[in-house]
Amino acid sequence: MDLFNDLADFSPEQIEELLTLARRLDEQPEPRALQGKVLALLFLSPSLRTLASFQAAMVRLGGGAFVISPDMSIHGLETRPGIVMDGAAAEHIREAVPVIASYGDAIGIRAFAERRNLDHDVADREFAEFRKLVNKPMINMESAINHPCQSLADWKTMDDLGMPRNGGRFVLSWAYHPKALPLAVPSAAVHMACMRGMDVTVLRPEGFELPEPIMAKAHDAANASGGSLRESDDRREAMEGAHVIYAKSWSSTRHYGDRIADEKLRRDLVDWCVDEPWFDNAADDCRFMHCLPVRRGVVVADRILDGPRSVVIQEARNRMLGQMAVLHRMLGRA
Amino acid sequence: MDLFNDLADFSPEQIEELLTLARRLDEQPEPRALQGKVLALLFLSPSLRTLASFQAAMVRLGGGAFVISPDMSIHGLETRPGIVMDGAAAEHIREAVPVIASYGDAIGIRAFAERRNLDHDVADREFAEFRKLVNKPMINMESAINHPCQSLADWKTMDDLGMPRNGGRFVLSWAYHPKALPLAVPSAAVHMACMRGMDVTVLRPEGFELPEPIMAKAHDAANASGGSLRESDDRREAMEGAHVIYAKSWSSTRHYGDRIADEKLRRDLVDWCVDEPWFDNAADDCRFMHCLPVRRGVVVADRILDGPRSVVIQEARNRMLGQMAVLHRMLGRA
Amino acid sequence: MDLFNDLADFSPEQIEELLTLARRLDEQPEPRALQGKVLALLFLSPSLRTLASFQAAMVRLGGGAFVISPDMSIHGLETRPGIVMDGAAAEHIREAVPVIASYGDAIGIRAFAERRNLDHDVADREFAEFRKLVNKPMINMESAINHPCQSLADWKTMDDLGMPRNGGRFVLSWAYHPKALPLAVPSAAVHMACMRGMDVTVLRPEGFELPEPIMAKAHDAANASGGSLRESDDRREAMEGAHVIYAKSWSSTRHYGDRIADEKLRRDLVDWCVDEPWFDNAADDCRFMHCLPVRRGVVVADRILDGPRSVVIQEARNRMLGQMAVLHRMLGRA
Repeated sequence: MDLFNDLADFSPEQIEELLTLARRLDEQPEPRALQGKVLALLFLSPSLRTLASFQAAMVRLGGGAFVISPDMSIHGLETRPGIVMDGAAAEHIREAVPVIASYGDAIGIRAFAERRNLDHDVADREFAEFRKLVNKPMINMESAINHPCQSLADWKTMDDLGMPRNGGRFVLSWAYHPKALPLAVPSAAVHMACMRGMDVTVLRPEGFELPEPIMAKAHDAANASGGSLRESDDRREAMEGAHVIYAKSWSSTRHYGDRIADEKLRRDLVDWCVDEPWFDNAADDCRFMHCLPVRRGVVVADRILDGPRSVVIQEARNRMLGQMAVLHRMLGRA
Repeated sequence: MDLFNDLADFSPEQIEELLTLARRLDEQPEPRALQGKVLALLFLSPSLRTLASFQAAMVRLGGGAFVISPDMSIHGLETRPGIVMDGAAAEHIREAVPVIASYGDAIGIRAFAERRNLDHDVADREFAEFRKLVNKPMINMESAINHPCQSLADWKTMDDLGMPRNGGRFVLSWAYHPKALPLAVPSAAVHMACMRGMDVTVLRPEGFELPEPIMAKAHDAANASGGSLRESDDRREAMEGAHVIYAKSWSSTRHYGDRIADEKLRRDLVDWCVDEPWFDNAADDCRFMHCLPVRRGVVVADRILDGPRSVVIQEARNRMLGQMAVLHRMLGRA
Repeated sequence: MDLFNDLADFSPEQIEELLTLARRLDEQPEPRALQGKVLALLFLSPSLRTLASFQAAMVRLGGGAFVISPDMSIHGLETRPGIVMDGAAAEHIREAVPVIASYGDAIGIRAFAERRNLDHDVADREFAEFRKLVNKPMINMESAINHPCQSLADWKTMDDLGMPRNGGRFVLSWAYHPKALPLAVPSAAVHMACMRGMDVTVLRPEGFELPEPIMAKAHDAANASGGSLRESDDRREAMEGAHVIYAKSWSSTRHYGDRIADEKLRRDLVDWCVDEPWFDNAADDCRFMHCLPVRRGVVVADRILDGPRSVVIQEARNRMLGQMAVLHRMLGRA
């Protein structure tokens, strides 16, 4: 495997093979599999789970990682092409990315969306630029519009729970958050659930529709897998018989890049905080998923997070296990 | 071993066994003992020795560690229970701690005292809360009132020097410092020295008495080991025949949490800077110990730190060796 | 090897042996060579390549590293001798350096020049002080006046390219930069090229002459190796038949430590940006080298960096390979 950028690049069978490997590595550790191998980790955006789980994954397989983050001990990195660098940034990503990659056997890069232009972000142009700078195996650790490591962990989490594929009801719900957040996780999650064959509903207030190309791609995945996809702004209708609610906040796509207008729109949506009444007509054991970090009392009520519906900790642990499988495929002996 | 939180949870014999293991690992390295094992390190407070020595310890045993610190690339972590998280912090420790722990085979946590309420801090409530969030082996890397890794290193340092146990005279002395510092190190040190069977004197100005429950616990340890414990504000009396002076600054307990009143009280105590005259009536080869970092010319004179009395560098190195023994017990094969 | 501080401490034959080892480790990995070995990395100045390449080097050889940087989670380190530490810094390097070294099998230290007094910096007094504090193998990761790891990588890069030694024409050229930068890289580079036997020209505007002791040392190296050294402020003359231009900005030595006067002098030198016309009378395949980070459009034109002359990425990768050889010699079994 040379690139782990998008679950859509794999068949459902290939995903299952990766998850079988993840389970094997959890049960039968291979602490010498990647001896002497190095994973380069470049964080242009903040991280906790990704930062920790990739380092842990490499150590478990006998190798190691190093972390470069502009917050650490380097000056900011310039990303704009063709610029005269007489400002604060002392280095351009056109040098930094290939150099960092040259020290690793593979490189993981995280760079959140710029959130100025929706088309630019939906096309994931920045990550595509990074790809051109690297001639090593490369992992998307969250780009403008994708987060395949999260989706792999989410898929595994539902498998672990015995959540049905065809016939399983998956609700991706927008939730309130004081800030306008990226589209990467909801875009990746809706596609993952469709690819898994589930009956998927995107529950969101008006003005927060997911981008049309993202929905079209998810529709295609649903068609191929025997699943389905619809949208709704009616909570009751959306939650009918749901097996899982996957909560996440994201930016208004109607006012993308316009912080003021986005804030005006979301201001009245503070009741989009997942709580027990949301589950009234869901399946009895309907689960709560979230990629974390999550704001308690804002995105979701404490009693949900602390109760039996929540699987967020298992979901986070599956980040490490899924990534171990990816790294094993990328860097292990054939 | 499932928890390394307090030397008081072990017998003196068990401590000696740990130190025997520490010495063996120093002389006969075991670079494959913890192959593929991961130590998660969560720093909610700053660190140098702990940060470095735990990472080095894991590498020496063939495993590895990762570090999460709110200073690094994550936003602040919320610690207050039941709060609506509409402020700066994007994640609560109720998620962060179990997630970070789930990536490791063990977790070390550092969180200094809040220093608002003395009873709260003396009861070490925050660390007890962390414990409930983790179902893995856990190490106290300095809590509100304890620092068992430091105490283990201190014990070993005195053993290395041939310092007598029963009959050895140990002076824990307050020292001047411009800031009000935590009680963890002095509380751990007085208990350690009592448990080791030494004749212990706490030398401190009025208003800087150690908390009563800490003194009571140390008294119990002295009784069990054949040592003794007393307090004094008279330097000459305290230092009589001393084999070691263990210097440390700490907050006024009389004005705990009241920074202004604490500053007023300590302002006149700048002469509590350990210097050669302090040793006039001590044992000839009386040693100077300090956990570091130490402010030169403030806590202790340069000529002491740079002279033959000082064992602070050996003491710091013993941090790594003691921790290697703890990790070997926690994570090694039975 | 106990100290890697200056290429001048080695013969050209010894450098070649190191580079032969570097090549062997690149082609035939030794992922168990330094099992259980720890490299301590202390950064008192910022870093990207050095930070990443040393960590990667240790993992590739089966060991590991830890990083201490005042930017991370520790308070600033005091460096002034004999000071009463009642200010911001909570720890002195006289404790920090030996403690950090005590956790490693070797230590690397980076500390840029203070740039107040030229004689002080040229004598590399600060690094000499560090050396006294450490009784372990030690690596100069860039000091006031030296950068041997960079020079080792540069030497290898020219070998890789088949660049002639005796008879090879090497131009070290000053370049414009908005800030006054250290002398370490140009000082190390001019010596390295002379030691390699090349015909070396230092091309720089008036006021930016390299310090006399640095030039004298380089002259000695040229005499010993059959190379030559001259200075020029005439670009056309300097570039005649050049096989490589090594660009770097540095402080005015005429106004050393005087930021205002330095800025006045460099203000008119913005045309010292390496571009294609510079190569008019150079050898056809004249290469462009730079230690990175480099400011695009300021130090060098994009078309040079992105074109076939540039070898900056290979040069950066050779940092890791050269350092692997140094570490293997320092820490490997005899």
